[in-house]
Order: sequence, then C-alpha cells, then structure tokens
Amino acid sequence: MSKMNEIYRTPLALLTDLYQLTMAYGYWKTGRSEQRSIFHLFFRKNPFEGGYTIAAGLQAVVDYLRDFQFSKDDVEFLSTLTGNDGQVLFDPDFLDYLKELKFTCDVDAVPEGTVMFPHQPLVRVEGPILQCQMIETALLNMINFQSLIATKAARIVSATGGEPVLEFGLRRAQGIDGALAASRAAYIGGCEATSNVLAGKLFGIPVKGTHAHSWVMSFESEEEAFKNYAEAMPNNCVFLVDTYDTLEGVQKAIHVGEKLRETGHRMVGIRLDSGDLAHLSIQARKLLDDAGFEDAAIVASNDLNEDIIADLKEQGAKISVWGVGTKLVTAYDQPALGGVYKLAAMENSDGSWSMKVKLSEQAIKTSIPGKLQVRRYIENDKAVADMIFNQLEAEPEAAILVDPSNSEIKKKASLHWQAEDLLIPVIRNGEVLSYEDDLSEIRQRVFDQLKLFNYGLKKNKPSESYLAGLEEGLHRLKAEIIEKARQGEVE
Amino acid sequence: MSKMNEIYRTPLALLTDLYQLTMAYGYWKTGRSEQRSIFHLFFRKNPFEGGYTIAAGLQAVVDYLRDFQFSKDDVEFLSTLTGNDGQVLFDPDFLDYLKELKFTCDVDAVPEGTVMFPHQPLVRVEGPILQCQMIETALLNMINFQSLIATKAARIVSATGGEPVLEFGLRRAQGIDGALAASRAAYIGGCEATSNVLAGKLFGIPVKGTHAHSWVMSFESEEEAFKNYAEAMPNNCVFLVDTYDTLEGVQKAIHVGEKLRETGHRMVGIRLDSGDLAHLSIQARKLLDDAGFEDAAIVASNDLNEDIIADLKEQGAKISVWGVGTKLVTAYDQPALGGVYKLAAMENSDGSWSMKVKLSEQAIKTSIPGKLQVRRYIENDKAVADMIFNQLEAEPEAAILVDPSNSEIKKKASLHWQAEDLLIPVIRNGEVLSYEDDLSEIRQRVFDQLKLFNYGLKKNKPSESYLAGLEEGLHRLKAEIIEKARQGEVE
Repeated sequence: MSKMNEIYRTPLALLTDLYQLTMAYGYWKTGRSEQRSIFHLFFRKNPFEGGYTIAAGLQAVVDYLRDFQFSKDDVEFLSTLTGNDGQVLFDPDFLDYLKELKFTCDVDAVPEGTVMFPHQPLVRVEGPILQCQMIETALLNMINFQSLIATKAARIVSATGGEPVLEFGLRRAQGIDGALAASRAAYIGGCEATSNVLAGKLFGIPVKGTHAHSWVMSFESEEEAFKNYAEAMPNNCVFLVDTYDTLEGVQKAIHVGEKLRETGHRMVGIRLDSGDLAHLSIQARKLLDDAGFEDAAIVASNDLNEDIIADLKEQGAKISVWGVGTKLVTAYDQPALGGVYKLAAMENSDGSWSMKVKLSEQAIKTSIPGKLQVRRYIENDKAVADMIFNQLEAEPEAAILVDPSNSEIKKKASLHWQAEDLLIPVIRNGEVLSYEDDLSEIRQRVFDQLKLFNYGLKKNKPSESYLAGLEEGLHRLKAEIIEKARQGEVE
Repeated sequence: MSKMNEIYRTPLALLTDLYQLTMAYGYWKTGRSEQRSIFHLFFRKNPFEGGYTIAAGLQAVVDYLRDFQFSKDDVEFLSTLTGNDGQVLFDPDFLDYLKELKFTCDVDAVPEGTVMFPHQPLVRVEGPILQCQMIETALLNMINFQSLIATKAARIVSATGGEPVLEFGLRRAQGIDGALAASRAAYIGGCEATSNVLAGKLFGIPVKGTHAHSWVMSFESEEEAFKNYAEAMPNNCVFLVDTYDTLEGVQKAIHVGEKLRETGHRMVGIRLDSGDLAHLSIQARKLLDDAGFEDAAIVASNDLNEDIIADLKEQGAKISVWGVGTKLVTAYDQPALGGVYKLAAMENSDGSWSMKVKLSEQAIKTSIPGKLQVRRYIENDKAVADMIFNQLEAEPEAAILVDPSNSEIKKKASLHWQAEDLLIPVIRNGEVLSYEDDLSEIRQRVFDQLKLFNYGLKKNKPSESYLAGLEEGLHRLKAEIIEKARQGEVE
C-alpha cells in the first residue's frame, strides 16, 4: 500500500513555520541544539462538544519523519531569506548543518484509531531540542486534521446506528490532500467507502459511485437515461431519481429494475439527493417493496451530518445507505482540532531533568510536565478510567487518579483492573521500529475501542463523562511548578 | 516558479468521484462520448454572507489539465473494481480507451483574483461530454477551496484597514495541501506573508517568523531567552512577550531592544498571543513609545478573524501587524464554498445546440443554459453592473439586465459604459494558451478589482447590493426551458 506522503514529489522538511527554523538557528548558535528534551502533542478539548476523540494521522507522521531531510534546494531557499537589515537570516555554517542533519529522536505514539481524551499525549517526541522543535508544525498539521475527521466519521456512523456511510466529499474538501487525507480518516472512523478514486487507489479504500444529474439531463428523458445506464453497467445500478420529480423517478427506476431482473441482474437501489428525505424515502420504500424490490437500497445524500441523520431516523426515514460529503470532510461545524505540541522536560548536564510547564491565565491551557504515558484501566471489557503518569518518576504502588479539570474528583486504581499503556515505541534514534499500514486493522480498532466505553459518553451530545485523570504525584508536581513559576522562579 | 501540482508525485487523473468514470463508461458504451457539450463552474451564494467572492485556484486547474492522463497504474487499479455481481465494472476496451485519452476540450476562465458574483461562471468547459464530465470533481476541489480562502483573506485585510496580515495557519490546516493551497490563496487575497516555509519556496510568498513560547520556556528566564535570541538573530527580533506576564515581558523586550540598538540593530517589534489584546496593546504601545521604540511593531495573534479584528480596532487596539491562522486557512465559519459544475448545452448532430437546465424545487439551485460569458460594465472607474449572456445567441444591440433572484429588477446597459468580458480563453483543444504564474500580479488584481466596487458592498456585512444580472433574452430562455421541463417535455 502506498505511503501517505509518497504522493508528494517535493521533500517536506520545509513544511514548517519559519519560527521553528529561526529557533533552531538560535539553539544552534547558543550551543544548545543537542540538549535532550521531551515534547508532547495533545489536544485540550474534544471536537464537536463530543465525549471522545479518535487519534489518526500517525502514518503521515511516520512517513514524514522517515524521509526527514533538507534537500539542496531547501537549503538554497533558506539562504535567500533576509532580516530587517536586508542581510541573510542564516549563517552558511548553519545551512551546512541542516544539510547534514539526520532525524535522531525517539517517538512514542498511540496507534491510529485509539480513543483519546483531552490532555493525553497522542505523540511524544524525545531528543535534541533543535530536532524536536523543528517537526512541531508538520506533526500538528497531520495529526490535527486526520484525528478531527476520524472523530467526525465515528460520530456520523454512530448516528446511522451502523448503517453504511459513504464519503462523497472530494469536491468540497480543502485542497487535494484535504480530500485524500479526509477520505483516509473517514474510512478509519467507520465509513464503508469513498467516492474518491485516487484515495481508493492510494489507500485501498473501497470506492463507490454510479451517476449524477448530468447523466439524466444528457438524455431526452429520465427513463431513457436509466435504461442506457443499466445497459452500460448492469452490475452497478443505483439510480439517482430526483432530477425532475422524485417519486416519478422511483417509478422509472422500478421499470428499468424490472428489465434488469429479466436479464439476470439486480438493481442495487436508488439515490435521493434533495427534498424531504424522510417523506420521500418512506414513499420510495413503499413503491419499491410493492414492486418486489425489498432488497433495493435507498441511498440518501444532500448536506447530511450527524444531527440531520439522527433527525431523519427519528422521523422514521427509510434510508439504508448514507452519503455524506462536505459536512464530513471539512468537519463543517468545527473545521480544526486545536491540538498543540508543548515542551515538557529538558535534560540538564548532570543527567537530571528540568520539568517544563507552559503557563496560561486559563487553567485548561496549562500543559503537563514530565515524560508522559497514558494508562487505560479495564475491567470486564469496559474502560473504567485513564491515567496520565510521568515516566521520569518511579511508578506508585497504588495509583490515585485526579481529574485534571477538577482536582476534587479522585479515584484509586484497583489492583483488579487490567492496565494497558497506550503510547508505544514507534521510532528509536530516528529509525522507524514498527509501523502498521493496514487501514482495515486501524478501522477495526476504532470499533473495538469504542466498545470499551459507555453509550452515554459516545452520544453526539454526551450524557456522561469518563475519568481521564492525572496520577496524583504528577498532579502535585504540576501544581508545584505552576506555583513556583507564578512567583517568578521560572525553572 | 513551481507549478501548483508539481508537488504531487502521483498523477491526478483519478482525483475524481467514481461516478464520473462510470458515467464516462456509460457515454462510451452508448456511443456518445464525443458529443460536444458545455459545462459551467459557478457558485450560488457568496461565502461568509459577504457581498463578493474572489476567484482563485485556476493555476492548479491548468496544471491538472495540462498533465491530464491516465497512467498504466491508474488503469490497472480501475480494472480491479467490481460491481454487485463480483464482475468487473469496466470493459478492457474502455480501459484501453482511457489509457489513450488526451484532453481536447476548450477552457475559458476568469483570471485568478477577479471579483465574482453568484451564478457567474468562473470556468467554462466545452468539448466531448465524456471529458467535460470526468474533470468536474477536481475542478471543483481546486476552485472551491482557493476561492473560499482568497475571499476570506480579502475580508480580513479589509478589517485591518490595510494593515499587514500574516498567515500562520499551517498547524491547523486541513492536510498538507490544505495548508499550501491556503497559503497561496491567502496571499492572493491580500496577506503580506506566511509562516509556511514550503509555501514560500513553492510559490514565492514572503515568509515570516521569529520564536515561540517553547524558546522562552527553554531558558531560565524570559530576559535570557530574548537576549539569546537577539544575539543569534539580531536582524529578525519580534519578541513574544506573553509566556509569563505580558507587560513584564514588554519591559524585558525593551531592555533587550536597547542592547540591540547599541550594537547597531533594531528591534522589529513584540508579539502578543493571549489575553485582552486591546488593553495589552495599548499598554505595550505606551511602554514602547516611552522607551523610544515608536517604530517597533506590535504583532497580535490568537484566534483572530475579521470580526474580532474589527472589534479590536473599535476598542482602539494599538496593533500594527495581524497574525491570523486557523480562522483564515480553514475559513472557520464557513469551511466550504458550494461551487457546482453544471451541464448547460449539448450539440445535436445537425450542429444546433440543445439548452440544458438543472431544475430544482429551489429557484436559486436552477442552473443557467447556454454558452455563458460575463460582461462587466464600468463607468468612471466604477463597476455599474454585470451581465451574464449566452454566446450561442447574437448579441443584443441594447442589452437589458435582469436580476436573477428578482426579475422585477432590471437595468438597461448604457452605450457609454465600458464593457469588459471576464472569461478569457485558457485552453484550446487541450493546449494551454496563456497562463499567468505571477502571484504578485494576481494579488494586485484583487486590490484593483475591489477598487471597482463601492465600500458598502465590500463591508464584511454588506450594506448595499450590486446588479449581477442576466441578459434579458437569456433570462427568458431559461424561464421557457424550465416551463417546458416542468410540463414533462424535457429537452
């Protein structure tokens, strides 16, 4: 299967904010470029006011880091950049350093498809600060977007109650890769197929599609259009019936379906793309059933999202397959996940670690120090709580979990719980260790992971919460560092 | 300068919905693949409830069409697709046809940076229906997104009153090309620079950036961080002052700025990234001015959009440079432009044309038939009205313009008006004719075009409208076809 970033001809080392390179220059100039440090990539709030987030995008990150290198062209471009005095920004010696630079960090990450909660690291990077810093922007770009879309897809699939969802978003997606990456993430999140043929080729996602209104318009009559389509492609007949009058269109589809049947073929179904989908699908179902087409699918599309789908189902719509486009691939109601990447520790010359916290007036924006791992506790096949802990400290014998947004809420981990650590080693000293490339496995993981959690958490407007806590010692450490920093003793 | 699609290693012919290919197959099977037809790409509503839209993305379209070809791999992939009976979808003969297929259509389009209105074609494609149809999805993907972002950028630049806007969106953009295409479109729309180094390299956009909070956190103190940065890169000093306490941060920036001055350098400015930006910028301005740094810029960022910027300006904020990220590159409040691509005419065997209209229950969704051109009338350097007309009909001597959303509103074109036709030939018989590649020229066009229109139309909540009408004969033709079709006599 194709690597995510193989679609790019251009090297991606410059896919970064300029300030990452000016800071890299600063670290290099001040002799600190090799100082070992730890960064975490995490988000602060689930998207769509939901109860969870599906991690995705790691494949792109691994490909990017595996190939990380500044090309001759890249360095030449950097040599042309100037400051406010018209002089170049970067010393030639630094550009030589970049040209030779190899990525040598360690990366741990949660597998794609893992259910995650606010403040939990999806990716942890440890290594020379110059390198850790330089890759921030690309990692955020890749993880933020795919996690957003995988989560959106999971919500939509949940709204259909598991009925098939087809992703039709290419025409309204944000750019070429905005479409390709969205098709991939939507499939991970539970979609059955995409209309995007290139995504099908690159990622092995099933592709679906039949015909558009323009096919119908290109004929003298709708029935002739269906008849010609059926003759051309008798094994792929989903007739779009709303070009003129929807229910008349259904009747014409039935006529052609009957002829198809005589030739030993089967009409797969019809598609509705406008109007009152609840009413029309109920009427269409009746017409189809009465004509003996009980197994014909009713596909519906037209600006669907999870809320409209839930509403249609409540109205008793007889839709069996859901085509979702714009609202899915752009995550229309919240088109960005606010993931961040923060420095959490730096190694001192004596081998000890200084803990780092990004302060903020808003408590939710304050980051967590240390070298973090996430432990998921499971009992009777249900997740009972998560714990973020600091691997630079000895593990406590009996862990106590503290809710990061309300430290009054605590829970003691039971010894009877199974424990699974979510971050796994992905890259060591720049070498990719293990790497999954099988989208179906990742997609299956989403189903399996979601089963661990209660229905109330997974509802599109969640009715219960889940304790995704901090280990008590880590919670205390964080509070101490904040207190010290507020007093001006910045560590 | 690099071509937009040169960043892609993979051929893009499969960047389409499967139904375009199944329809292509249908046209081919029914012997109609070469029937000459005309399609238009247009949108129905300006984004963001604004008064206008900036056309962008044509460069990507031209590159895509120039290189249009199915590779051996592409065709092999298509040969694996199956229908509901497990048999292949496509005849091998059709796949051979695709392998040999050359793009031979004519394409006319408005230059990037042109101000456009609902229902006006941005792109017109004329040629064999199979080819016209097949390219629909890619054209929509490219034009929809870049036009959306160019328009968003123009609105933001308008809100700053022309003060520089920097685009910082890479980390939250929708995929890699969601970022690259957004940086390009944002620059077209009026941004001064981007943080995205790769966009700078590929498209020649100025790049900007200095340092992040992590730089400050990596030092024992904020002042030490500024000092080290200034020593490393004295000609690019914009100090981010809000890591601990913003106004104390400004004081420290001033200390370091004074030292910079002693060494013959100049502090460019400071950056605020959190808190009450109006209050903090006013205080910071005072501190800077009192210390003799009247020319130091105050850069502000933190989830800005056109409304927040307008609000900050109303509060008297002393911000001189605006950093805008997520809300710009994802067009957060409306992350998709609903552009469509509709069949408008088909040639009959006798050389005459059948007019085609996509009907809809909603009048706004009904398309316009013909071979359309847009004429912009100008008087005293101001646009007075636009007219869509049908080039398959003789031009009327005295044109009458009809408002498409309210046919009561009419205007007679004056012979004293200058007239400019917006669509220009771009491709003839598959060959790219003329092609602009200079982003600065396109960006200048946006400024020049916007000057043609009144302030009330350009306001973020427009207070006046503009007559973007249909030529009266075309308006009548459309009404007649709709009437006929409603009576079942589909042409």
